Amino acid sequence: MNRTERVCCITQILCNSPNKDFSLNVFAQQFDCAKSSISEDMKLVREAMNALGYGYLETTSGSKGGVRFVPYVSDEKAHQILEDLRQRFLEPDRRMGGGFFYTADLMFDPQIARGVAMVFARRFAAVDADVVVTVETKGIAVAAFVAEFLHLPLAVIRREAKVTEGSTLSINYFSGSSDRIQKMSLSKRAIKKNSRAILIDDFMRGGGSIAGMKEMLAEFESHAVGVGVVVSAGKEHAKILDDVFPLLLLDDSEGEVRININL
Amino acid sequence: MNRTERVCCITQILCNSPNKDFSLNVFAQQFDCAKSSISEDMKLVREAMNALGYGYLETTSGSKGGVRFVPYVSDEKAHQILEDLRQRFLEPDRRMGGGFFYTADLMFDPQIARGVAMVFARRFAAVDADVVVTVETKGIAVAAFVAEFLHLPLAVIRREAKVTEGSTLSINYFSGSSDRIQKMSLSKRAIKKNSRAILIDDFMRGGGSIAGMKEMLAEFESHAVGVGVVVSAGKEHAKILDDVFPLLLLDDSEGEVRININL
Repeated sequence: MNRTERVCCITQILCNSPNKDFSLNVFAQQFDCAKSSISEDMKLVREAMNALGYGYLETTSGSKGGVRFVPYVSDEKAHQILEDLRQRFLEPDRRMGGGFFYTADLMFDPQIARGVAMVFARRFAAVDADVVVTVETKGIAVAAFVAEFLHLPLAVIRREAKVTEGSTLSINYFSGSSDRIQKMSLSKRAIKKNSRAILIDDFMRGGGSIAGMKEMLAEFESHAVGVGVVVSAGKEHAKILDDVFPLLLLDDSEGEVRININL
Repeated sequence: MNRTERVCCITQILCNSPNKDFSLNVFAQQFDCAKSSISEDMKLVREAMNALGYGYLETTSGSKGGVRFVPYVSDEKAHQILEDLRQRFLEPDRRMGGGFFYTADLMFDPQIARGVAMVFARRFAAVDADVVVTVETKGIAVAAFVAEFLHLPLAVIRREAKVTEGSTLSINYFSGSSDRIQKMSLSKRAIKKNSRAILIDDFMRGGGSIAGMKEMLAEFESHAVGVGVVVSAGKEHAKILDDVFPLLLLDDSEGEVRININL
């Protein structure tokens, strides 16, 4: 294989497993060439990645000496992703009674979910998390892509304790949007003690669900090191939870729907 | 940018959006060079991709003349993915009462979900589907990756009609594994009439859930063109639904758990 082909293959391998460490020796072995050649290849990959702006190479420490691909979006690209989502959100007929919006098609669209996840991954790249946590159902696709990008496992909190979850921990929390007590349940095996978690949810109004997820984490002697919600609705976003990172701020308080991008 | 850098960038762009059509003109514009240069680049990308085996380039027809990246896994790699999953499945303590298994950690692990999705994407690459459909909750991550790989939208059937789903269609079906009537519900907006759907589910025993999903599709005047389940349990897999593609066949009928790979 010549240099160009190797560079193409290395790019594909790295992009296929974001934030996973690869040792240069492994590449040298796989492509049957000297480690110094791989180092040269890596310089070219690094430059091309920097030029494209989809992510960058990080050199990993340790005796083995390796690299990992860290996905990244520029401010401009992140803004574009959120502006596209904002436009989709403002489409007619999304608004239903009770301050609810139809968003399932958006939250489960792989392109949208992946784009949004990229913005979260950028934000939470340095929080040193052990796990991504979401509560079913509509945030799962976004959370799965965040977990992929950050090379972390994903735990999904259920609404009801399921027989397939084994022993579970359950908590009750007050949901302001539905104006009642709701339940969350998670398998005891799902999160290790002392975990640092990134919480992801699709929609927040009042913050009850996020508060519930934090209470759940406390039951696992763990805590949140980052909270990302796709849309925060209401007039007083900032007051409710000041450690939440919402991508879109939705204000529907006076009949009209206004959405601002929050980057 | 020189050829090697362009090849690296093109690889990244293509792999970032599987099964999405890209016109050569767009690349020529983006990299500010002649279309003939991009054609040469593409030859190199094609060869390198073929050598690596993570996917291949398909030339798209039409006046614009373009390419798309089609993810692919070799038989050997697919077998390895399933063997890894099989080993994880056989870990002690997964088995619970009533023929249930704890699999949430596996189904939501992005590496596993992505690997499994790759095998499904390979299988369903040519069925010409319009949408991927799953029923909440544990198959959602796999289904999201399948949808990403095939560049399709994803629709998630809920257990209960939710207020955020707007008008919904609901069906009842008999679940053999829980021995009772269960319900599925999907927003009327989720699937267009005459859609060709790929159904994905994490676990099948008896096939009631898949039958329910098919009934749901019929309500949308749509039908399944492929059905993938990660694990099929029971002794008589083949008899129940002969159009299902299960990846692992689990037989726990005589106290012991035996799992075979089905490729």
